Amino acid sequence: MGDKFERGPVTRKRRSTIVGAAAAALKQLNGKSAAGKSIDEVNQDYNSKSYENVQDAAAFTKRERVKHESHYYSKLSCHKQRESLLSSASGYSNYRGILNWCVVMLVLGNARLFLENLLKYGILVDPIQVISLFLKDPYSWPAACLIIVSNVFILVALHTERRLSMGTFSERFGAFVHFVNLLTILCFPMSTVLMVDSVTPAGGVFALGVYTILFLKLFSYKDVNKWCREIRYTKARSLPRSLSYPAVQTSSGAAQAPVTYPGNLTHRDLYYFIFAPTLCYELNFPRSPRIRKRFLLRRLFEMLFFIQLMVGLVQQWMVPSIQNSMKTFQDMDYSRMIERLLKLAVPNHLIWLIFFYWFFHSSLNFIAELMQFGDREFYRDWWNSETVTYFWQNWNIPVHKWCLRHFYKPMLKRGVSKWVGQTAVFLASAFFHEYLVSVPLKMLRPWAFMGMMAQLPLAWFVGRFLRGNYGNAAVWISLIIGQPIAVLMYVHDYYILHFQGELPS
Amino acid sequence: MGDKFERGPVTRKRRSTIVGAAAAALKQLNGKSAAGKSIDEVNQDYNSKSYENVQDAAAFTKRERVKHESHYYSKLSCHKQRESLLSSASGYSNYRGILNWCVVMLVLGNARLFLENLLKYGILVDPIQVISLFLKDPYSWPAACLIIVSNVFILVALHTERRLSMGTFSERFGAFVHFVNLLTILCFPMSTVLMVDSVTPAGGVFALGVYTILFLKLFSYKDVNKWCREIRYTKARSLPRSLSYPAVQTSSGAAQAPVTYPGNLTHRDLYYFIFAPTLCYELNFPRSPRIRKRFLLRRLFEMLFFIQLMVGLVQQWMVPSIQNSMKTFQDMDYSRMIERLLKLAVPNHLIWLIFFYWFFHSSLNFIAELMQFGDREFYRDWWNSETVTYFWQNWNIPVHKWCLRHFYKPMLKRGVSKWVGQTAVFLASAFFHEYLVSVPLKMLRPWAFMGMMAQLPLAWFVGRFLRGNYGNAAVWISLIIGQPIAVLMYVHDYYILHFQGELPS
Repeated sequence: MGDKFERGPVTRKRRSTIVGAAAAALKQLNGKSAAGKSIDEVNQDYNSKSYENVQDAAAFTKRERVKHESHYYSKLSCHKQRESLLSSASGYSNYRGILNWCVVMLVLGNARLFLENLLKYGILVDPIQVISLFLKDPYSWPAACLIIVSNVFILVALHTERRLSMGTFSERFGAFVHFVNLLTILCFPMSTVLMVDSVTPAGGVFALGVYTILFLKLFSYKDVNKWCREIRYTKARSLPRSLSYPAVQTSSGAAQAPVTYPGNLTHRDLYYFIFAPTLCYELNFPRSPRIRKRFLLRRLFEMLFFIQLMVGLVQQWMVPSIQNSMKTFQDMDYSRMIERLLKLAVPNHLIWLIFFYWFFHSSLNFIAELMQFGDREFYRDWWNSETVTYFWQNWNIPVHKWCLRHFYKPMLKRGVSKWVGQTAVFLASAFFHEYLVSVPLKMLRPWAFMGMMAQLPLAWFVGRFLRGNYGNAAVWISLIIGQPIAVLMYVHDYYILHFQGELPS
Repeated sequence: MGDKFERGPVTRKRRSTIVGAAAAALKQLNGKSAAGKSIDEVNQDYNSKSYENVQDAAAFTKRERVKHESHYYSKLSCHKQRESLLSSASGYSNYRGILNWCVVMLVLGNARLFLENLLKYGILVDPIQVISLFLKDPYSWPAACLIIVSNVFILVALHTERRLSMGTFSERFGAFVHFVNLLTILCFPMSTVLMVDSVTPAGGVFALGVYTILFLKLFSYKDVNKWCREIRYTKARSLPRSLSYPAVQTSSGAAQAPVTYPGNLTHRDLYYFIFAPTLCYELNFPRSPRIRKRFLLRRLFEMLFFIQLMVGLVQQWMVPSIQNSMKTFQDMDYSRMIERLLKLAVPNHLIWLIFFYWFFHSSLNFIAELMQFGDREFYRDWWNSETVTYFWQNWNIPVHKWCLRHFYKPMLKRGVSKWVGQTAVFLASAFFHEYLVSVPLKMLRPWAFMGMMAQLPLAWFVGRFLRGNYGNAAVWISLIIGQPIAVLMYVHDYYILHFQGELPS
């Protein structure tokens, strides 16, 4: 069994003559230089080297034969030196399919959870139950009454401004009236919700939300009108009438002339602002040219569909999860608490995402289209945010714009440092979060406030240590995990307070 | 409360003179033309229109004043006409963050499942238990014996080839000997596994897998040597010795001369091929220049880590899921069956992915590095495949290359149509899948065969109706769902057969 075939003189001789050509061809096919060449190209190389300038019949026959042989050579050689795609040396980076994989895995995973939930609990969705959240006593509608009363504050703000513009009120007195008015806007609904028993938590959140928006809007209204008076004053002092600027014609001839101070102090103007999807007052809002009916209908359909979906998900998925968590949280069993928290995180996050789309895209666009309000920037690309700060600056543009214009920039102007300013904005935001949760639940707990304030060290940490996709993932994790922690805290405390004896054991 | 402020003549007059300039500035800031301009730019426009070529002190003072005023104007106007990002009209398409979201959701979702599993079952991972899968009787190693015996077939193939090269065997007789040898390679281990009781299913799969690989390798060895003889014959007939091609020198002087037929018919050469990570024989495999020690150690670490991970996942996640599914599948409760199937799909798919990486990247690269085997293309980018055909052509390159070279192309050459050829390849593949599963389980069921054959209509459907990402998602779904169906079928039948009375009820 010795290897005489390799070393025998007979083989050697044969190899050098008969199979020499085959070796040459193999070399060409194996070698790096021929790596990208097709068989025909290799043939051409072959021919051009051996038979240059020979064009007779013999050469043709040979070429045919060579072609026939090279067919075999290409069959003999089927390996090339190359790296695996997943080796770093290959330089490969096309993982387009991974996104599809993630989507498929998420859909299948959640379909499974959905089915499991249905098999375990049956169908819990009950639209009638929702009404009972808002109404305890069908003959008493405290939240609706509160909202009707809010018109009083709007009118107070308007008439204060009128008097200020005419000079009947001094600037100081006007500012005082506005201060009292705004303070009442915050305190009056709060005391009502706390004192009237028939206000349900859902009704309370709704009423307080409306009042908070009103507070921010009237604050902006007051500020802008004040700036207008300052401009009027500057101009009246420095500009002789003869030198006044010529009024520039609007580019479109039929367009209305822009509203100017104090021509804006009308009921129509103020109520347009109150209903418009913005918190920042402006004398001349950009207007869209016409109401697109298809756009309006699509947004309306989305509004109706997503509100149903949210209610369904809460009833079918959130409520059982939370109820199952109560015992665990009373027992303080940590590994089970984490399991429950992660179980709650998924529906909570999905509902938050649907809420975001429902409110900031569908509803605000619907209102804007109906009012021909031109500025539809209600959110920016927060889903790509790589820092916590970017997220807070871009997910809720109406509030962000208001904070920047009426809170942060005025503070900077008074010489406050950037860091203090940002902290103050987060403090104000934390206050309103707490206000909107604690008061309707009639239970003062610091969870919402702490949740907002925790954003500051988180923002510092993410901005300092994480970049790019890691930063983005950190923002997502803080969203997905942070919210259900706060939700569970409140729900736990609320259950303990109200249903201590009725907990499932 | 009439709107006299807007319509009163006093206001009108004032507006036209004093606030005209403000209106003009507002217009500029509101209008589309100034949309992208900074305040300073607007100021410049303003100045250049009103005071062209005026450079005296008065103009300077005015410019200062205008600057001061425009600060207020920019404060007054804070809205622009624009669409929301999620509206199709915005043309926005950067959803980079969504991939991170998917990854975070998958990680958190599976972390939850992991925790739930641990809380429910405790730790089930037990490395010692794995050994019992391979060994029933520690003094009898039937699978290992089978593998040692396989050397006989290798030597038969080598010596048949030697005789063929020398002409001692005629081509016909040689082909007959090879046929018998290859048939025995398939039948001998099958009958041994079926007859010897001490062969466990795991041991059986291992032994049959080794024999299947050997079958494919020796088939390729036989074919390539035959092609070499055909070349030798063609050349000897047509080429006078004097006209033989000059042997081309290898580019690197120190490199070995390429091996030529029949110099390849040595034990060393054949055993190199038997252990090399390829199924296609070649006389001169491309070789990597050196063994990269770091690369080798990384692959070794991966091999050890992922094998542990796979065993752990099977014990902790697959086995309880399957055991829980048994009752459901006996009762044929369809909605619960789907829920169980989806529950099993996730660990099954993850284990398959880990297996893919472990086998095709870590293990084959480890062997290749050790043997300085140059061609590391063991898989291509099947994760991006948009058709089922592309997936089957790219996920297992050694087998795909073998099928193409020794099965599909020879068939095409004999005038078989493409469709028939592809179907035949799938049939052969289905046969081997069935062979590798049914025989070790000692239970002939058509599930693996049907699973492979179902790929043909699936491939037609996906190729016909789905494109791009939809096609990719369809391939993923078929992978994620298809495998656990087959797994459950076999496990169910195996349980019914062996543990009928012991099922948990």
